[in-house]
Amino acid sequence: MSVLLTDLYQLTMLQGYFHQRMEETAVFEFFIRRLPPERNFFLAAGLEQVIDFLEDLAFTADELDWLSKTGRFRQEFVDYLAKLRFTGDVHAMPEGTVFFPHEPMLRVTAPLPEAQLVESRLINLLQFQTLIASKAARCVLAAPEKLLVDFGMRRAHGAEAGLLAARASYLAGFAGSATVLAGMTFDVPIFGTMAHSFIQAHDDEMQTFEQFAHANPDNVVLLLDTYDTEAAAKKTVALAPRLKQRGITIKGVRIDSGDLAEHARKVRRILDEGGLGQATIFASGNLDERTVRTLVESEAPIDGFGIGSRLDTSADAPYLDCVYKLQEYAGRPRRKRSEGKSTWPGRKQVFRFHDAEEMQRDVVTLEDDPLVAEPLLVPVMHGGQRLESPEKLSDVRKRTKGNLARLPRRLRSLEPASPAYPVEISPSLRRLAETVDARQSGQS
Amino acid sequence: MSVLLTDLYQLTMLQGYFHQRMEETAVFEFFIRRLPPERNFFLAAGLEQVIDFLEDLAFTADELDWLSKTGRFRQEFVDYLAKLRFTGDVHAMPEGTVFFPHEPMLRVTAPLPEAQLVESRLINLLQFQTLIASKAARCVLAAPEKLLVDFGMRRAHGAEAGLLAARASYLAGFAGSATVLAGMTFDVPIFGTMAHSFIQAHDDEMQTFEQFAHANPDNVVLLLDTYDTEAAAKKTVALAPRLKQRGITIKGVRIDSGDLAEHARKVRRILDEGGLGQATIFASGNLDERTVRTLVESEAPIDGFGIGSRLDTSADAPYLDCVYKLQEYAGRPRRKRSEGKSTWPGRKQVFRFHDAEEMQRDVVTLEDDPLVAEPLLVPVMHGGQRLESPEKLSDVRKRTKGNLARLPRRLRSLEPASPAYPVEISPSLRRLAETVDARQSGQS
Repeated sequence: MSVLLTDLYQLTMLQGYFHQRMEETAVFEFFIRRLPPERNFFLAAGLEQVIDFLEDLAFTADELDWLSKTGRFRQEFVDYLAKLRFTGDVHAMPEGTVFFPHEPMLRVTAPLPEAQLVESRLINLLQFQTLIASKAARCVLAAPEKLLVDFGMRRAHGAEAGLLAARASYLAGFAGSATVLAGMTFDVPIFGTMAHSFIQAHDDEMQTFEQFAHANPDNVVLLLDTYDTEAAAKKTVALAPRLKQRGITIKGVRIDSGDLAEHARKVRRILDEGGLGQATIFASGNLDERTVRTLVESEAPIDGFGIGSRLDTSADAPYLDCVYKLQEYAGRPRRKRSEGKSTWPGRKQVFRFHDAEEMQRDVVTLEDDPLVAEPLLVPVMHGGQRLESPEKLSDVRKRTKGNLARLPRRLRSLEPASPAYPVEISPSLRRLAETVDARQSGQS
Repeated sequence: MSVLLTDLYQLTMLQGYFHQRMEETAVFEFFIRRLPPERNFFLAAGLEQVIDFLEDLAFTADELDWLSKTGRFRQEFVDYLAKLRFTGDVHAMPEGTVFFPHEPMLRVTAPLPEAQLVESRLINLLQFQTLIASKAARCVLAAPEKLLVDFGMRRAHGAEAGLLAARASYLAGFAGSATVLAGMTFDVPIFGTMAHSFIQAHDDEMQTFEQFAHANPDNVVLLLDTYDTEAAAKKTVALAPRLKQRGITIKGVRIDSGDLAEHARKVRRILDEGGLGQATIFASGNLDERTVRTLVESEAPIDGFGIGSRLDTSADAPYLDCVYKLQEYAGRPRRKRSEGKSTWPGRKQVFRFHDAEEMQRDVVTLEDDPLVAEPLLVPVMHGGQRLESPEKLSDVRKRTKGNLARLPRRLRSLEPASPAYPVEISPSLRRLAETVDARQSGQS
């Protein structure tokens, strides 16, 4: 993606820094100011794409040429941009880590112009995958035994959202996605068989099922609700012996409309009585973690769920109140004091205390405070280079699983936890904030 | 974007069509089933990107190779995909057209596999820009005299969403966007000056303002709320004469936190008393069409608004209940009858009736019905090729303006209109649906 996927003010500020030769080390941190209503935690995701972005950061000749022609930038500044690369350090919570408001999820330490320029795209990448992974984790908590599949690409917000929603939901514990490109790009398992249009294009539903099975013999999941769900289930039963003779097994059926629990019960009975006890039932149609939980609690005989629009848009909370803030420049801690938007200054770390079974509390503290518990931020880039090769998604999935398993029970609910998880501000950090306030009071 | 940005079932269905040599002409239509709560209309957007997608549709060698290796597809089918291109016709409502639920916004007429394959990405493209353009149009209706700027890229859902939100809001009537790449790609005017981090990185706010002005002399808009808004306004006034001596004018100020109306009034007074009557006040900070309307109605002296996260995610309605449905195959109209999701069959047209001033009603009818009013769907592609060169966004903006000007007054409100705009189903279309139902009743 072009480095010009940024806000214009990053470039006008960089022109200011260039003008004043302000190139000392800056520290910025990414964090989220508050939980959306009804959420209890965030699940960190998007770090791999941020590392790729920082490693590849460079202006192309076309971009530089276009910038010159806007008339907004001096040629010596454009020449400076031509050489600009990201040369800094990054500390971050590994993907699949549970975290909370005001905890820095990622810290950039770099010459001021570099650390500034990357803000817009860095937020754009971290917010979206964290948003979707956090939503997907709720679906996993609501239906831990079920096969969950991301169906949302068509109503995701553009191409990258569709692709990265597949990745984010998979690392949160989904079984996979319908999005083919996520299979090719990230090795996410892909799922899919037929839409209503396939059945409508034919004149006879049963013949359609049979022909689909011959064309896709290893992947026979039949869509039942184009005309009449139970009638289609009976056709499935009638068809099974003919397919069996050809060595083809009906793996399952899908229901996409109506009262899913009721249809699933009727279909289960028809399949069982027809000797298709092994065939699974998969449900879809405007689902989210709440409707899935209701279906699970009703003990509807549904083996898996396709979750689409509401997952890929995080419909109940489509954005996070996340920011990337300057915390230190040229060795001096900094603090923004805008009304309702003030920040904690300095380079921070997050310590997590847990007992054998559960997370107990976190403490946001200064980076150089003595290590008294598990530190959540770890070095991931040094001098503009990644420190480790990209983590396997299977390893991230294990981390997610471990993190979700250690969540206190009240946070595993879909309702707001009371009390919320305790995140404390260390005394050292409070003292630093006071010192910075005293120094900055000359500004007001 | 890769053609593999699609749902797996498109490919398994295509393998089925290939197996059965089903390549006759299919007609699919894109439409939206219902208005989100509190919305009164949609604004069509995204067509240009759909045309580009269809013209460029092709599988690369790497993609074909990967598909082969999945083991899901026969080699002869993969060889067939290698040659697949989009060769069909497209009719659509031009971008900037106001439309309503159940009205086809776009129709594809093509050999069945081509028309089927494009479904996922076509919905992905049309939904997102229509979603954002419709939201942006509400902002324009709420503040018709103000300068509106898209600030949302950082919290948009990925790169493409950030870029296309800038385009969609501009065609809906915004003045421009902060997103630089939208300037380079679509010639959208770009806006931006400084963030809080710029001021925090310096030790003295007034010096910061001055240095920024020297670095960006043609674009001096100062951000006031990093420490104390009114104190910063006084520094602006104090700085102005010094800058004037150097030929630099302060164009305006920005306020990003606190009670925006209250701060704007105080700042306006300070600027006016200080001889900066020409300097504009720009406001931002978690705004949407409702908060903007409240500020406009309070007569706060604010000249422009930066609207971000809630615009670029369409936060109150982050997806549309939109579909792309098979309406005809091999000359026979088709109809899906799934519970709560049935469709109108056949190739359709939308007629719009209006008097001299306002739109009065629409009629959804069959394509070959006699023309009795303005037809909204026009041919845009034939034989896989676009019929006209890409429309200029300035022309789309004119169409939007004309469409919004003809909206009945009750639809221009931010609240749900009562009665809703009348969309009638023609008698010919009702008769066709009955005929198709009678034919398909053998399926249930």
